[in-house]
Amino acid sequence: MLTQVQAAPGAGLDAFFQARSIAVVGASDDITKIGGRPVQLLRKYGYAGAIYPINPKGGSIQGLQAYASVLDTPAAPELAILAVPADATLQAVRDCAERGVHGVIVLSAGFGEAGPEGVALQGELVRVARNHGMRLLGPNCLGAVNVVDKLVGSFSIALEQSMPPAGQVGIVSQSGNIGSFTMRNMADRGLGLSRFIATGNEADVDVADGIAALAEDDATRIILCCMETCRHAGRLTEALDMARRRRKPVIVLKIGATEQGQAAAASHTGALTGSDAVFDAVFRRHGVLRVRSFEELLDVGHAAVLLSDGRLPTTDAVTLVAASGGFGIMMADAMVEAGMTLPQLAETTKALIREAVPTAGTNNPVDASAQMSARPDILLKMLTALQEDANGSTLVLLLALSLYNPRLRGVYLEALAKIRASHPDRLLVIISQGPPDAVAEINALGIPVFPGIPAAAKGLAGLVRLGQLAALPAAPAYQGPVDAVDPAVFRNEFHAKKALAAAGISVPREEIVDSAEQAVRAAQATGYPVVLKIASEDIAHKTEIGGVALNLQDDAAVREAYDRLMANAAKNAPKARLDGVLVAPMVRGGVELIAGVSRDPVFGPVVMVGLGGIYAEILKDVAVQVAPVSEDEALRMLRSLKMFPLLDGARGQARADVAAAARTVARLSEFACRHAADVAEIDMNPILVRPEGEGVLVLDALMVPTSSSTPAH
Amino acid sequence: MLTQVQAAPGAGLDAFFQARSIAVVGASDDITKIGGRPVQLLRKYGYAGAIYPINPKGGSIQGLQAYASVLDTPAAPELAILAVPADATLQAVRDCAERGVHGVIVLSAGFGEAGPEGVALQGELVRVARNHGMRLLGPNCLGAVNVVDKLVGSFSIALEQSMPPAGQVGIVSQSGNIGSFTMRNMADRGLGLSRFIATGNEADVDVADGIAALAEDDATRIILCCMETCRHAGRLTEALDMARRRRKPVIVLKIGATEQGQAAAASHTGALTGSDAVFDAVFRRHGVLRVRSFEELLDVGHAAVLLSDGRLPTTDAVTLVAASGGFGIMMADAMVEAGMTLPQLAETTKALIREAVPTAGTNNPVDASAQMSARPDILLKMLTALQEDANGSTLVLLLALSLYNPRLRGVYLEALAKIRASHPDRLLVIISQGPPDAVAEINALGIPVFPGIPAAAKGLAGLVRLGQLAALPAAPAYQGPVDAVDPAVFRNEFHAKKALAAAGISVPREEIVDSAEQAVRAAQATGYPVVLKIASEDIAHKTEIGGVALNLQDDAAVREAYDRLMANAAKNAPKARLDGVLVAPMVRGGVELIAGVSRDPVFGPVVMVGLGGIYAEILKDVAVQVAPVSEDEALRMLRSLKMFPLLDGARGQARADVAAAARTVARLSEFACRHAADVAEIDMNPILVRPEGEGVLVLDALMVPTSSSTPAH
Repeated sequence: MLTQVQAAPGAGLDAFFQARSIAVVGASDDITKIGGRPVQLLRKYGYAGAIYPINPKGGSIQGLQAYASVLDTPAAPELAILAVPADATLQAVRDCAERGVHGVIVLSAGFGEAGPEGVALQGELVRVARNHGMRLLGPNCLGAVNVVDKLVGSFSIALEQSMPPAGQVGIVSQSGNIGSFTMRNMADRGLGLSRFIATGNEADVDVADGIAALAEDDATRIILCCMETCRHAGRLTEALDMARRRRKPVIVLKIGATEQGQAAAASHTGALTGSDAVFDAVFRRHGVLRVRSFEELLDVGHAAVLLSDGRLPTTDAVTLVAASGGFGIMMADAMVEAGMTLPQLAETTKALIREAVPTAGTNNPVDASAQMSARPDILLKMLTALQEDANGSTLVLLLALSLYNPRLRGVYLEALAKIRASHPDRLLVIISQGPPDAVAEINALGIPVFPGIPAAAKGLAGLVRLGQLAALPAAPAYQGPVDAVDPAVFRNEFHAKKALAAAGISVPREEIVDSAEQAVRAAQATGYPVVLKIASEDIAHKTEIGGVALNLQDDAAVREAYDRLMANAAKNAPKARLDGVLVAPMVRGGVELIAGVSRDPVFGPVVMVGLGGIYAEILKDVAVQVAPVSEDEALRMLRSLKMFPLLDGARGQARADVAAAARTVARLSEFACRHAADVAEIDMNPILVRPEGEGVLVLDALMVPTSSSTPAH
Repeated sequence: MLTQVQAAPGAGLDAFFQARSIAVVGASDDITKIGGRPVQLLRKYGYAGAIYPINPKGGSIQGLQAYASVLDTPAAPELAILAVPADATLQAVRDCAERGVHGVIVLSAGFGEAGPEGVALQGELVRVARNHGMRLLGPNCLGAVNVVDKLVGSFSIALEQSMPPAGQVGIVSQSGNIGSFTMRNMADRGLGLSRFIATGNEADVDVADGIAALAEDDATRIILCCMETCRHAGRLTEALDMARRRRKPVIVLKIGATEQGQAAAASHTGALTGSDAVFDAVFRRHGVLRVRSFEELLDVGHAAVLLSDGRLPTTDAVTLVAASGGFGIMMADAMVEAGMTLPQLAETTKALIREAVPTAGTNNPVDASAQMSARPDILLKMLTALQEDANGSTLVLLLALSLYNPRLRGVYLEALAKIRASHPDRLLVIISQGPPDAVAEINALGIPVFPGIPAAAKGLAGLVRLGQLAALPAAPAYQGPVDAVDPAVFRNEFHAKKALAAAGISVPREEIVDSAEQAVRAAQATGYPVVLKIASEDIAHKTEIGGVALNLQDDAAVREAYDRLMANAAKNAPKARLDGVLVAPMVRGGVELIAGVSRDPVFGPVVMVGLGGIYAEILKDVAVQVAPVSEDEALRMLRSLKMFPLLDGARGQARADVAAAARTVARLSEFACRHAADVAEIDMNPILVRPEGEGVLVLDALMVPTSSSTPAH
């Protein structure tokens, strides 16, 4: 049902946010009903456009003139909100299309999530909408809200008590509940919102549309996104790149991170979930900060908004200040665990701090003692010294419970207002519990207030990471040739390696032979010692059937090994089709890598690299990225491995040729893109990475065809 | 100053919690002053005993008769709270001692934390107190509070607005600020407190005393502890064991977990910090749950209190329920990451759920849809089915924002009250934001309400861990002989291994020789192949100076190797004193371990074990525990290694003799205890662990004497 042409991400979404007239189909006087709530909320919060309640009974609804059909309204509404039962929705969508409505929001459930009939009905909704150039949000969704213009196309419980303040945070969420929860929590922290969109079943409009629309919205400066699945990789990455070009940080809570969560996601939505590690890689590549909890989403989002006036941290350095040594230690622990660093202060700064607060300990964390809050001028003097220190770090001041004390509250607020005025470009964040109005006052100064130490640590680390991600170069899509692969590559490692060699990947000199005498001649040509291996497409694990002979030193050993291998194959794999025996040089010395390609259901060919042998298996120490990867990206993948020191000359060993390894991974990824139609999987295992300058050798390789590609014979 | 005899942990602390009369020395009419606040707080919250303000001016203070000295009060006060400057404190302590006061709280600063003079003064306070059998809390502390009896020996800001409700949580904290913060936050969650004690400089009363006093207090059922340092290992573990015997969970936030935090701790308090990993091990051994953040302390503590009626979870299984599939996935991700498991529901349970809520998805997490809260009876029917499922898991119900909606609030509260009444022994926790009064109502039912998903996951995982820790056997202290070691063990590996062999640890058959001919005879006796190694106490790294020859196959090779080793030693370590050359069998096959002993500044001899070679170094994959360790404990240490699968037959390899490895570690730890006075460090590296049933061999060993023990010659 999704194979029809889709619009570019974000195209036509203005209807959901900027409509000047709205029809509510299925409008009701009962404000506890889904059809009653949008009418009530549009009026309650002061939407300025026309509202047309649609109800077959006509008359008046919530004090407004109602119409029997969207075809009867005085003017064509730009947006229609549909709150009628599933079986009445298709006709309502047809009416909207006929009337020239630009967008419809289908709040009702009972479609794609409700069995085959629902799936068919949902497909029909999309067909009608697309045929008329109308965008469709939902069904089974919580709609859209433009907070600035009070346009409420939603029945979210988060709007029950109040409209969030207008501001810079845009929210896009597949799940309406999670989106609502985010909206409510940001508002509770006193942070303003721009737009909210919940995409539900994503029959037409999806998360990519939402991200793109927020990227293009001038009011939005930060995009918070909650997603479960991705239905179209290209649209998602295109939308993320739009946000990146407009320098709008995107923070994503992608749920379904564990196998159990993914299983739940699959049963919940029926969409493809994709590998979690691949999502990680895609987000990283496209400048997105992925967070692991709702709390982290809020904490990083909170700080990002308040510092989005150009003060986003460019360094992971923090200077920590508390009135209590114990709290200083807690902060130091949490910050270091989050990856931040604690530079020391300059001696001049230390002297100035002691001048202001003689009892202060001036290491970082600064143990400023209760004296720091004795008077506003003392505190200001200390803060000034800290903000002017040359280490350029972010200043983190912990207030614990102080804001509950009226005298201390006065001291802090006065000094904080002054330091912000005198040092508008410097970074200062507060960790404090306290009366909400005091916290709001500090936030209003442009100073983020975190509710706890881990929140501040994760929040700041997230901001630093956002900055680092923004600095990475964009990854261009694969632009090279696309063609068929020689089907022989699926037959045995000899042909697989030949194809890889043609793609610029180093493999050993090898021959396939059919007799012991040929094997001896090949071994002599190769140079001793050599290796013999059975070549057969039917034997994936050669060692297990006795199909490998290592370290053969002379003609006699080769002859004996040839016969033994053939006998083993006949005995242990009697039905296997044999292509002969491979003769290769015995290569030693270096570090073993493994690399491979697999096909992600969402993102297509994915390249993987890890340290070879038993350790990769036990430690799951591998890095993945969607193909193609550049050599620089491949190098970052290698460097991200826990066991990277093994390649980097740990314990006085020679440094391995990491550049050649990266080149090999990059070329493998290009090969995978070029032959994506034919090749489903590639394994290169082991890859011997030799000392720096000596390159790598792929000692074994295996390719698996896609189910659609022609078998090898 | 701490070398005087200390009382048993907790002895004499009643004075701080149950005094029937209190003198406040330095009392003031000004309630913003440290001397004014205890008088005010004792009166404000209704302390029932006598209050004697002490002030040289006499007269009346805050409406009470004041006295010039503690010597003038009508009766001897049981407790004195000192809020006079540091230089007046010693006289005040002397007066208290003379008057027969049982305990003094020194709130004032300016002692051990303030330089050498302060240290001396603090020592004098303790001397006077101990000479009179009087306990001293502080100085530089936030005192003690008995919440039940409204005895406030503190000026904590956490008591500014209200007294916490009386309850079962005891708090002991070195840092007054952190303790106050804990007290305030527990009270804000509606959880009652029993006692609070903040130990500050710990001149006399320390955290161990506090833990012991709370363990013995009938009102206290859970002990929350915030500590930075430990001044006396034995007292701490004794106090922890007291709590364990009384089945009172102890949850510790030990700060200074990172190097930076430890550095800050050292500068902050001057006490020994100890290795963080060793603290981990000690806490684990003594049944303590160590948490990593303040938030986790509160979350686990919160749940532990509400479930301490015997419902503490005995399984890591959870069944997750939410009205939104997305939230279900988030819960699944967080629970699995915290180590919990998600069993499936019985088919009968699934059928009952669908009967109640036809739209529900009945996998775990259960996607119960908005229908579950349509009516109280529907919700109750579903909850009943879930609570009666045979999987015995903890039920986690997520309400998100629902409690903000008056109708939903009614539905949930009615159904929750009924399910608690009908299933009082089953475990049910809620995740919800919501109006504080609604949350309090649910907590009051005995159902813990967590504010967020990670909080619930960490809270439940913490509870499960507490149960697991409580089930571990207590670790007896070392009871064996203590004697001097043969000083030769420090001279070379030959003697070190001989001593280890005498302690029951397997080492190869070895000889020390002085000539090439002796080497050949030794090699013949040993059996080829052999290894030759230089033996010298001055050469710790034999390989680096060319002092090792491996895999020697015959007499000629041994002869040549002997001469080469001697030549290398003469050239590369000309000043080294040589003991000869060691001849040992060349042993191969098996997995390499390393094990050792070092001396922790707080806990004494500590045994370490890890996988050998480059991986231990890169991955820091080691386990530590305070000596002695039993074989069972050693086995748990081995099993905790990331690379344990290497020993356990990963990838079809033979399983290694893990039992023998554990026995070796246990015997090493006993050796370390026996010779703790002489031996500072031991390294056994490598230890070859052979296939199951074939034992281990310690191939090399090194011992380092304590600085006080006699050198080897």
